[in-house]
Amino acid sequence: MLVSIIPGFVPQNDPELLEKAKASRPKLNKMQLAPLRYLSGDTWEAAEGLKEKELGLGDQVTLDFGRHAVGHVSLDFGIRGSHQDAPLWVRLEMAERLEELEERWDTYRGWISPSWLQREEYHLDSLPCTLSPERRFAFRYVRITVLGVSRKFRVTVNKAEAIAQSAADWDRVPERRFFEKDLQRIYDASLMTLSECTQDVMEDGPKRDRRLWLGDLKLQAETSYISFQSLSVIRRCLYLFAGSRFPDGRLSANVFTDPEIAGDDTYLMDYALFFLDVLCDYVEHAGDREALNDLHETALFQMEYVLERCQNGLISPESAGDFFIDWSDDLDKWAAAQGIVILALNAAERLCGLLGDTERAGDCRKKAEEFRRAARAEFYDPEKGLCLSRGQVSLHTQVFLTLSGVMTPEEGILAIRKAEEVPGSPGMMTPYMHHYYLLALLMAGEKDAALHHMRLYWGSMLEGGADTFFEAWDPEDPTSSPYGGSQVNSYCHAWSCTPARILVEYYPEQYLEMPVEKTQEADT
Amino acid sequence: MLVSIIPGFVPQNDPELLEKAKASRPKLNKMQLAPLRYLSGDTWEAAEGLKEKELGLGDQVTLDFGRHAVGHVSLDFGIRGSHQDAPLWVRLEMAERLEELEERWDTYRGWISPSWLQREEYHLDSLPCTLSPERRFAFRYVRITVLGVSRKFRVTVNKAEAIAQSAADWDRVPERRFFEKDLQRIYDASLMTLSECTQDVMEDGPKRDRRLWLGDLKLQAETSYISFQSLSVIRRCLYLFAGSRFPDGRLSANVFTDPEIAGDDTYLMDYALFFLDVLCDYVEHAGDREALNDLHETALFQMEYVLERCQNGLISPESAGDFFIDWSDDLDKWAAAQGIVILALNAAERLCGLLGDTERAGDCRKKAEEFRRAARAEFYDPEKGLCLSRGQVSLHTQVFLTLSGVMTPEEGILAIRKAEEVPGSPGMMTPYMHHYYLLALLMAGEKDAALHHMRLYWGSMLEGGADTFFEAWDPEDPTSSPYGGSQVNSYCHAWSCTPARILVEYYPEQYLEMPVEKTQEADT
Repeated sequence: MLVSIIPGFVPQNDPELLEKAKASRPKLNKMQLAPLRYLSGDTWEAAEGLKEKELGLGDQVTLDFGRHAVGHVSLDFGIRGSHQDAPLWVRLEMAERLEELEERWDTYRGWISPSWLQREEYHLDSLPCTLSPERRFAFRYVRITVLGVSRKFRVTVNKAEAIAQSAADWDRVPERRFFEKDLQRIYDASLMTLSECTQDVMEDGPKRDRRLWLGDLKLQAETSYISFQSLSVIRRCLYLFAGSRFPDGRLSANVFTDPEIAGDDTYLMDYALFFLDVLCDYVEHAGDREALNDLHETALFQMEYVLERCQNGLISPESAGDFFIDWSDDLDKWAAAQGIVILALNAAERLCGLLGDTERAGDCRKKAEEFRRAARAEFYDPEKGLCLSRGQVSLHTQVFLTLSGVMTPEEGILAIRKAEEVPGSPGMMTPYMHHYYLLALLMAGEKDAALHHMRLYWGSMLEGGADTFFEAWDPEDPTSSPYGGSQVNSYCHAWSCTPARILVEYYPEQYLEMPVEKTQEADT
Repeated sequence: MLVSIIPGFVPQNDPELLEKAKASRPKLNKMQLAPLRYLSGDTWEAAEGLKEKELGLGDQVTLDFGRHAVGHVSLDFGIRGSHQDAPLWVRLEMAERLEELEERWDTYRGWISPSWLQREEYHLDSLPCTLSPERRFAFRYVRITVLGVSRKFRVTVNKAEAIAQSAADWDRVPERRFFEKDLQRIYDASLMTLSECTQDVMEDGPKRDRRLWLGDLKLQAETSYISFQSLSVIRRCLYLFAGSRFPDGRLSANVFTDPEIAGDDTYLMDYALFFLDVLCDYVEHAGDREALNDLHETALFQMEYVLERCQNGLISPESAGDFFIDWSDDLDKWAAAQGIVILALNAAERLCGLLGDTERAGDCRKKAEEFRRAARAEFYDPEKGLCLSRGQVSLHTQVFLTLSGVMTPEEGILAIRKAEEVPGSPGMMTPYMHHYYLLALLMAGEKDAALHHMRLYWGSMLEGGADTFFEAWDPEDPTSSPYGGSQVNSYCHAWSCTPARILVEYYPEQYLEMPVEKTQEADT
């Protein structure tokens, strides 16, 4: 459970930086969608017939818009029979997957607010009328249930439409044709996932949280560079984080933008450190020196803050508790945290290089070297051939100590394979963590294994007909949830969009890049 | 169960009459109300402390506005703790009586639409905010339940208010001071009931139906003449009925005004006949010759239509099925229907008198005489000393055959007393029927008995703290309902407002009329 509450917390806002964040607010592209079909009882019917379908008390239809949409629903309700002599009481349920609608929502007792359930009730006093809820939803399916209607009339849905919105620009995406169908599907679903999460900010998930998180932003931005190139949104997000910080200069793990911009009172050390990576990547892709000048001190402060919590080249075990790493209650995070600190030192070196500060860059390089040595001494067991975090073997530990060079790639892949054989070790709970696992395999040159795992893990999400990748996924236990109830799981989640980037970067031989007309310049 | 559905029914509209109905649309007076106290758990707390009360998941408060209100609710929600990181999901339940909130609304399975339950859900994404539902409700109590909220924040109700509306003008009501407290309460509750139902039209009940019904209009108008004198609303209602009729000229039992004016496809013969009474009373009180000229043909047609369904001075037993009389499934309505036809003939005679058509007035008088004789022959059993409707003894039969002069007042009161002793005879289900029962007692000079019954029946509604009179009431079975579930019962219902008129008309010795400054002329 992750619930941080700091009484009296007020973020420190920097009006100049927030002004720049506001100036980079993207335009949302809108698209009108009509349902393709509807489910009545157990039968799918063509959408054309919907307006003839008369609904009475307790009746239900489920509309399928044919793709995932983030946006608004609009329903024209009509009336058949006698004059309306009672309100129409109707429930709408919006779902990203059809399976969500089969869950008993009433029984949800998880620790995340049930207010995220996309379930709304309306009373319509004057039919015919158009119901256009102001709230934004994330959905492919919309279930309409008639909760109340009199015996004198029945209801029809004369027209249904969705207005889908996204700040992602598909015209900028090079057309890539994969030789294998399943990789095409994985690639497409990755970009769809990213597109749906690219809104007014880079959101973690448009169904739940609907908010800018730093750990998600990192992966979104990386995938955006090979696809939508949403530079303006990424710039906006960097300025939002820097513009509303903890009073001591730390970055919040996430930032609210409604009703006002405000950093959350949640600090995650790994997320704060990722700011270094996100800034470097952005500056390198966008050539935005203004952002580099405005934001590098904030970035480097995140590193310094963490280094103060290190001794003898090791992050303190207590501070490791401030790392997210993965949704896993029984994971010992110390060793993985150390790996992330080393990766952040690499990013700091890169940032100093961009600033032309070669001396400080050299310091970072040396520090990283020191931290790798200290980590190897503390965590690596040469006899067992893997790393342990206070005695615990986990994939998380092997992955981050491989990526950070504490083990050589050859040692790393052996360690990962051994760790996979250890019964009862903490499993990887999220596509977020699986992403870093893929990177570790690729670092060791295990391209086939990585592709196999991508197909196994991300591919299996698509088997039930999903259009986007999920927040949490265990193919062995499809209804598992980090929240105590899968009803609030998000099925289009930013941190799961990474396969597209990995395919493009590591598997160019798998696809043909098609020449496309670029209609406009990248959004800077 | 009363559900009339005529496939393809389209009312016959008379644009000229409807224009006059629209021109008589009353101004609604608005009044701002604040809650006096709130219920938290089992304890009533002063309203001042409400804004300090922090609400979390599942918490509930019930506001008491101190009086019945028809109108709108507005709630200012605030937030305590960390920044809002999830929507607030809140349920509002509006109730006329506190007891309504104790009923399990989920279990309602009656034949009236559950959409009348005053229960709404809202998702509020951006706190603080004001929730001001557009829908109108009828309530004294508003229960707020927090269905969803995150662990990071709690909710407060910083301000609550109601805007109550009515077209009734209290300034026109003579102040009457009753010597006995309980009669004062009955009188006050009568006028409160009428005031709450005097809206854009004379509504039957502001919680449920919220619509103009002819049987209710009759009693509302009669009580209005001794109180609010809402002549313009009554005129509007007469024109609405006449302006949107059955294609064959019959009057609908009720008229819709939203989204457009339309007579319902429900015909009740007694209600249609009451139009004669309502028109006569109105013309006598308002001196409105224009209305008399415009509407008398429609009124007299209702009589003619019924007379065509009579033979040998008797309404046909089949047509008696078109009478409402009372909510009573096992009542044989034939004899009571005959009584109402005779009363309508009396009204027709009166109307012809107003028109100066003495000849036709005389015809009506003779017809009434013939119908009384025929009724006496058919229904009165001199040996038993009461009337039977196809062998069935009921109070309804005795009441309407007393009021219509089929029995003498002396015979009538004896018949009523005897009928009351017959075990298993159909009971009176509504204040509407009890009203006609009081009139029959008064016709026989039984003033004490009538007052005693008024106290027993209407008085007992007030014992639980009600501010207004109910639609249906059985003191022996307080949760009984004509609808298969008391959850949809209306607790402020027009047809129950009559005690005030009866007190003023029949019991002047019970009160002192106080001189009042009249601030304006009657609303003509």
